[in-house]
Amino acid sequence: MSMKAPRGTVDILPKDAAKWQYAENKIKDICNRFHFKEIRTPLFEHTEVFQRGVGDSTDIVQKEMYTFDDRGGRSLTLRPEGTASVARAFVENKLFGEPNQPVKLYYFAQMFRYERPQKGRMRQLNQFGVEVLGSADPAVDAEVIDLAMTTYKELGLKSLKLVINSLGDKESRSNHRKALVNHFEPHKEELCDDCQNRLSQNPLRVLDCKTDRDHPAMKTAPSILEFLNEESKLYFEKVQEYLSLMEIDFIVDPTLVRGLDYYNHTAFEIMSEADGFGAITTLAGGGRYNGLIEELGGPDTPGIGFGMGFERLLMALEAENIALPLNDSLDCFIVAMGSDKVSKEATKLVHQLRVNGIQVDKDYQDRKMKGQFKAANRFDSKYVLVLGEEEIDRKIINVKEMESGEQIEIPLENIVETLKQKLLGGKGHE
Amino acid sequence: MSMKAPRGTVDILPKDAAKWQYAENKIKDICNRFHFKEIRTPLFEHTEVFQRGVGDSTDIVQKEMYTFDDRGGRSLTLRPEGTASVARAFVENKLFGEPNQPVKLYYFAQMFRYERPQKGRMRQLNQFGVEVLGSADPAVDAEVIDLAMTTYKELGLKSLKLVINSLGDKESRSNHRKALVNHFEPHKEELCDDCQNRLSQNPLRVLDCKTDRDHPAMKTAPSILEFLNEESKLYFEKVQEYLSLMEIDFIVDPTLVRGLDYYNHTAFEIMSEADGFGAITTLAGGGRYNGLIEELGGPDTPGIGFGMGFERLLMALEAENIALPLNDSLDCFIVAMGSDKVSKEATKLVHQLRVNGIQVDKDYQDRKMKGQFKAANRFDSKYVLVLGEEEIDRKIINVKEMESGEQIEIPLENIVETLKQKLLGGKGHE
Repeated sequence: MSMKAPRGTVDILPKDAAKWQYAENKIKDICNRFHFKEIRTPLFEHTEVFQRGVGDSTDIVQKEMYTFDDRGGRSLTLRPEGTASVARAFVENKLFGEPNQPVKLYYFAQMFRYERPQKGRMRQLNQFGVEVLGSADPAVDAEVIDLAMTTYKELGLKSLKLVINSLGDKESRSNHRKALVNHFEPHKEELCDDCQNRLSQNPLRVLDCKTDRDHPAMKTAPSILEFLNEESKLYFEKVQEYLSLMEIDFIVDPTLVRGLDYYNHTAFEIMSEADGFGAITTLAGGGRYNGLIEELGGPDTPGIGFGMGFERLLMALEAENIALPLNDSLDCFIVAMGSDKVSKEATKLVHQLRVNGIQVDKDYQDRKMKGQFKAANRFDSKYVLVLGEEEIDRKIINVKEMESGEQIEIPLENIVETLKQKLLGGKGHE
Repeated sequence: MSMKAPRGTVDILPKDAAKWQYAENKIKDICNRFHFKEIRTPLFEHTEVFQRGVGDSTDIVQKEMYTFDDRGGRSLTLRPEGTASVARAFVENKLFGEPNQPVKLYYFAQMFRYERPQKGRMRQLNQFGVEVLGSADPAVDAEVIDLAMTTYKELGLKSLKLVINSLGDKESRSNHRKALVNHFEPHKEELCDDCQNRLSQNPLRVLDCKTDRDHPAMKTAPSILEFLNEESKLYFEKVQEYLSLMEIDFIVDPTLVRGLDYYNHTAFEIMSEADGFGAITTLAGGGRYNGLIEELGGPDTPGIGFGMGFERLLMALEAENIALPLNDSLDCFIVAMGSDKVSKEATKLVHQLRVNGIQVDKDYQDRKMKGQFKAANRFDSKYVLVLGEEEIDRKIINVKEMESGEQIEIPLENIVETLKQKLLGGKGHE
């Protein structure tokens, strides 16, 4: 039992790792085009970073964090989400003082949440995310959403739904908050315990409750959109205009909320609409958080970002039957048969080909000729090189091109150059 | 204080992240040529995996692990090194049953060790490592060492020292062990407490002791090389022969030991000899461990691997003044001045260029014309596109090639194609 991976975690084996690498490379390329730069923060933070940066009243902080004391007695927590860590790093490293503002960052990071594992919900999960810190331009909101949508589209997803909402600025939220309390107060006793607490602490989160979602008061709850002041309304309109100019389809859903006090203006979620994707359809979620950096001790700095589940992304690709264009063949396999002299020559040749940019493998299992050819076939090798006592005496090697079946003898001293020509067009590796 | 990254951890900011990405891509390319495939294991394991896979008597397990109970009361430990996790994954996922043997794996992974932080020794550290499971061919030992050396060489390091040793097979080690006990027993009282314990538990590790390293009995201790039986001697000779054929320089050092019982045959370390590199010169270490897989509940399976510190690698590059060839320019910056109409057109254009493979950024700070040009210069932009009311009315855009200073007007409807020709040679992105 204890020799298995911990519950809610999985090994990513080579076959799947190739998919991860492909998607990560594609995403890095997109981030580069959007001029975002990578940041990497530690796996754990002082627990307070998440208490303040995610919010003490959230389920994540209250129920789901991996928190422990280190050997020096400090409380540390494995990162449950990405934004708080990046915001902490932004403040600590004084990135607000950099000449290039806003600071446009992306990350790939493992997250840890102690939840009941189920399909699409792991205890160790992986996210790609971005944060833009230092600009309150609605064009940034559109850019961030564009980046998320471009990622999904370029990986091949088609059945996507983008939902956006505005939570408004402080004033708008405060007025909405009062209206929510007035609306739910008469039904307080009918709501779940969590919601009774939420009503005083953070009434917006009542709208997010899974237990009470069918309560009749939910449907008639006042919408934030009725409470947006002029500035907030204008901001939201601009975001929508920009998205339309980019030909990005979206739906406005006033019930889409983000629970934390410092979230404001734009909130968005991207869902998969693929058949059979499962109950949890959210692929990515994000929004603006103009109060967060100040909450963590930095100067007043606007920010926006999203987090995108990597496991969910791969699930969505599967649900839409999208095969990533992975290259799983091998350039060259060396079949070597004979005495010590042959294995020495083969070992030397493997080295020479590799340092000259060619992908090559050989047998290390003492297999017979037939077994070695079988291995070459399993690896889908483009070329098979055959080396034996006789070849070495004649200073040649037998090269078989597997697709055409063509077989030629090449002088041993020319083999590296010949394969470089055939496989790399004489360019060599970078 | 608690809003800082935990002691012994650091943020990798964009400037440094670019170096990490470059080195990782180079390493992935090398692993591909050597036909190794990536594996990713969870950040934590059941504590027992490391107790058994690293060894209960090691400093790592006894003093340095981040161990904690999860909310279900299970003891988990953040990965302190890479081999035990990969070995556990090999067993759990029954990779020993795959047709392609040996299984050649590589990983990039964060490790966690609660040590006193100092230069080149962090509490969260990063390693690149490989493991080859399923072959006892000495050519594999040479291949694994070749891969490590190729990595350093292709990244540009020159001042390297490779040290190898053989710990022999079980019989050889057992005879050596007896000789060591006989040798040190008369001096037992003069050795440190740790070594007194080691003498009964694992006498080989006495040779590794930092406290007792100057004790006269150390110099005269019996060398493992005198105790290698015929088979072990032959094995070690083969490894050396193969390395020589690959023109890889090495030094045999009989005092190089690996403490654990299941380590055997080849052990190696790679050090930096760069001036001013610091006290800890080891860049990578590895060796054969033919007993580990069985120890973790799998079938008797030979294995060999190494771990390479990523922080140390970057330190060594710095010590040798090697600048990685990073591309830090920007393809294109859009300077937009004017009303709402202009920012709409700019936002749309940014989107269109990006989805057509071009890297582009614009101003999001409401900067004046001069400030926008300054930003373009800071980003080392190859092209600056200028867009204003007049340009939009005339349906053109001004394109300035920064290197030549050449400035031309392009019809707005042709700008994407024109820049694709100039920047991508008309290819588009992949």
